[in-house]
Amino acid sequence: MKKEIIVIGGSAAGLVAATTAKSNHPDKSVLLIRKEETVLIPCGIPYIFGTLASSDEDILPDGGLINAGVEIMVGTVDLVNPEEHTVTLENGDTFTYEKLIMATGSTPFVPDFIEGTDLENVFVIPKNKTYLDIAKKHLDNAKNIAVIGAGFIGVELSDELAKAGKNVTLIEAQEDILCCAFDTESCKIAESILVERGVKVMTSTYVKKLVGPKTVKQIQFASGDTLDVDAVILSIGYRANVELAKKSGISVNKQGAIKVDAYMRTHQQDIFACGDCAQKRDFVTGKIINVMLASTACAEARVAGMNLYELSTIKKFNGTIGIYSTNIGKTSFGVAGITEKRAAAEGFNIVSATFKGMDRHPGKLNQPHYQSVKLVVNKTTGIIMGGEVIGGNSIGELTNVLGFIIQNNMTVTDVLVSQIGTQPMLTASPAKYPLIEAAEMVSRKMRK
Amino acid sequence: MKKEIIVIGGSAAGLVAATTAKSNHPDKSVLLIRKEETVLIPCGIPYIFGTLASSDEDILPDGGLINAGVEIMVGTVDLVNPEEHTVTLENGDTFTYEKLIMATGSTPFVPDFIEGTDLENVFVIPKNKTYLDIAKKHLDNAKNIAVIGAGFIGVELSDELAKAGKNVTLIEAQEDILCCAFDTESCKIAESILVERGVKVMTSTYVKKLVGPKTVKQIQFASGDTLDVDAVILSIGYRANVELAKKSGISVNKQGAIKVDAYMRTHQQDIFACGDCAQKRDFVTGKIINVMLASTACAEARVAGMNLYELSTIKKFNGTIGIYSTNIGKTSFGVAGITEKRAAAEGFNIVSATFKGMDRHPGKLNQPHYQSVKLVVNKTTGIIMGGEVIGGNSIGELTNVLGFIIQNNMTVTDVLVSQIGTQPMLTASPAKYPLIEAAEMVSRKMRK
Repeated sequence: MKKEIIVIGGSAAGLVAATTAKSNHPDKSVLLIRKEETVLIPCGIPYIFGTLASSDEDILPDGGLINAGVEIMVGTVDLVNPEEHTVTLENGDTFTYEKLIMATGSTPFVPDFIEGTDLENVFVIPKNKTYLDIAKKHLDNAKNIAVIGAGFIGVELSDELAKAGKNVTLIEAQEDILCCAFDTESCKIAESILVERGVKVMTSTYVKKLVGPKTVKQIQFASGDTLDVDAVILSIGYRANVELAKKSGISVNKQGAIKVDAYMRTHQQDIFACGDCAQKRDFVTGKIINVMLASTACAEARVAGMNLYELSTIKKFNGTIGIYSTNIGKTSFGVAGITEKRAAAEGFNIVSATFKGMDRHPGKLNQPHYQSVKLVVNKTTGIIMGGEVIGGNSIGELTNVLGFIIQNNMTVTDVLVSQIGTQPMLTASPAKYPLIEAAEMVSRKMRK
Repeated sequence: MKKEIIVIGGSAAGLVAATTAKSNHPDKSVLLIRKEETVLIPCGIPYIFGTLASSDEDILPDGGLINAGVEIMVGTVDLVNPEEHTVTLENGDTFTYEKLIMATGSTPFVPDFIEGTDLENVFVIPKNKTYLDIAKKHLDNAKNIAVIGAGFIGVELSDELAKAGKNVTLIEAQEDILCCAFDTESCKIAESILVERGVKVMTSTYVKKLVGPKTVKQIQFASGDTLDVDAVILSIGYRANVELAKKSGISVNKQGAIKVDAYMRTHQQDIFACGDCAQKRDFVTGKIINVMLASTACAEARVAGMNLYELSTIKKFNGTIGIYSTNIGKTSFGVAGITEKRAAAEGFNIVSATFKGMDRHPGKLNQPHYQSVKLVVNKTTGIIMGGEVIGGNSIGELTNVLGFIIQNNMTVTDVLVSQIGTQPMLTASPAKYPLIEAAEMVSRKMRK
């Protein structure tokens, strides 16, 4: 059977690739093939363990796909034949395509340097409703839960499990939680709030072994210490799903992601890739990096969908800029672009400054929270390369303000002469807007 | 006495001009002369009538000025002599300056086409603590209050007075409330929320006369109808304070604002002006417009403060883009750039689209609110000229996202290939981020 455009994968990247493809090429038939009957909202997964009643409240609806005119098929693709332009499913069904988009996603990483990860009650966090529903049932009956790996998912999950009344220990091998995303000051603040909220945090702590015999009972650390547990969650990162690409002759890079260009094309004619399975190049350095974010995946998916039949130089992907935010209790954290420590490690001459004010003006209105903004600026050019924000619920969008500043290569001077909008109930004061004040502080340092 | 830099005016523009001047020229003495002993946060004024206990909770602190090393003097400037480079106060004190910044602000407009505005219990909303404290006392004793003029201040004030238990009628001569700032759909939504919250709204309604004899008792409308009231607030706009400029020989334009160039220089050597008293040119059309916003004032003040002794082409002011937001109950409204109706009136070929989604994902988390984004795009170039957003508390910063998009002359395609950051508790979904979806809708219309 012939389908003009086929998308493999049904999470954020697949969904957006399919709808963008259909929107840009309304006369083409678009088929999305996915493994899952029901798809979860990936970023919402940590919240099914506390705030949400169950995974049923975290469903990515099919309405968008259906309304757009995309056909959905549940099945597993066994092989792609780039020469023949065919996709064959495990059940033998074969489709020909004109254009193919691989959006096969990623799978939790299970390290072989920790023994005992195959014990019962040791879980990972895949984007799989069936697995997670079972895991949740087991976790509901556990009291002492250890979460290994303090990235965003580990942190959000720990907070949610603590909220659900569990005795949670979050274990991180690095010096700080969230330290791949934030500079040290922010990590320390996040840690202290998490601890206040009842999560035990162990940093610089190496897990050696999970001990059973059948169900996990204890964690043994490299230090020789132990911790008794009823369940363990591994949140140590994800690996791109590239088995299908590999066996179909689609090139995969050393880091294990499908190689793509700025139009999200693989090296095989008419095959594109986007999302967690696709190679990422850093916006600032052009280096291959490992960032897996639904929002990045969606941007890549739009680029793929727009360039399927005709390339456009203004519709290319300009490199991955990590734009993250998270929330712990009343406080939220955001980061966009490069951190100060990574900029220094890369060899940039950097000036940075942090301004802390209030997110309302006057500071007594409408559930105020302090708001701090840090800017990381290239001293030679004045271009803002990164920033971090801490504050209340408006931090998510303030992080996007930073994201647009960075993606437009704005300098601190550009920001200082820019206009912003302020409102007493919604934002900081125009006279002490932390973003502008941080730019002014950097500017002052640069004048010296 | 000699002061190297003198700033006249103590509200947002004066404060930021003085601190920017000192920061950029640390070796210069900076004197700020203002009329008020205590300065109010201008945008916070509506909230002293409801949410805040009194105007004492809306004070703009002097700490920023003092810490920056700016000298503050309370007094009224009687005359500036541009030839002699002197400033003379009403008490006879005279200062020489090298550079002078006029930030004399604005005063409520009292229309002569309404009779009886001099009756007792008829108030305006000046940025004057003493006046407002007296007005508030009278309003505390009033039950039926009419607010004439439904711009941002009229709307916020009406909502606050209703919150304080008053019987409030908001009267607007135009067809819609907030219609100078928003397109009709948003105005209607704002009106319906205001009405739900207990404010009576009368639009397309012309006030002819306020009737006493001594204290205002009744409003007579052009239609012949009447409304009994205990107090009236006029919020019909503000006029630039330019008396001092006029008598000092500093040019004022036909619209009544001090003429300035892109560096905020008046036509008199070494005299700058910024804020409500200074001329504004529209970012899109270059036309002289009348926008009075504390945030715009602060941006102008930074430009003035940075260019005092040496002009920099990268530190100029690129035209006023109105970036506004407001809040009515749980719902907030934001707008940046040109509205669709103004764009059409100016002769632009426009495409617009509105996308409505949720501001959390899944949409049940963390006090969710719907979020709608409208984009107004030049059909010929694809450049985003304006936008409107409606949603929860994150609207203030989302409006700033729009503001940076417009100020960077981004096209819909630029936005479609841009990366954003999303988080379940803080933002919309990456796959249905309303800003991106609206851009996609515009893009689809442009392809047709």
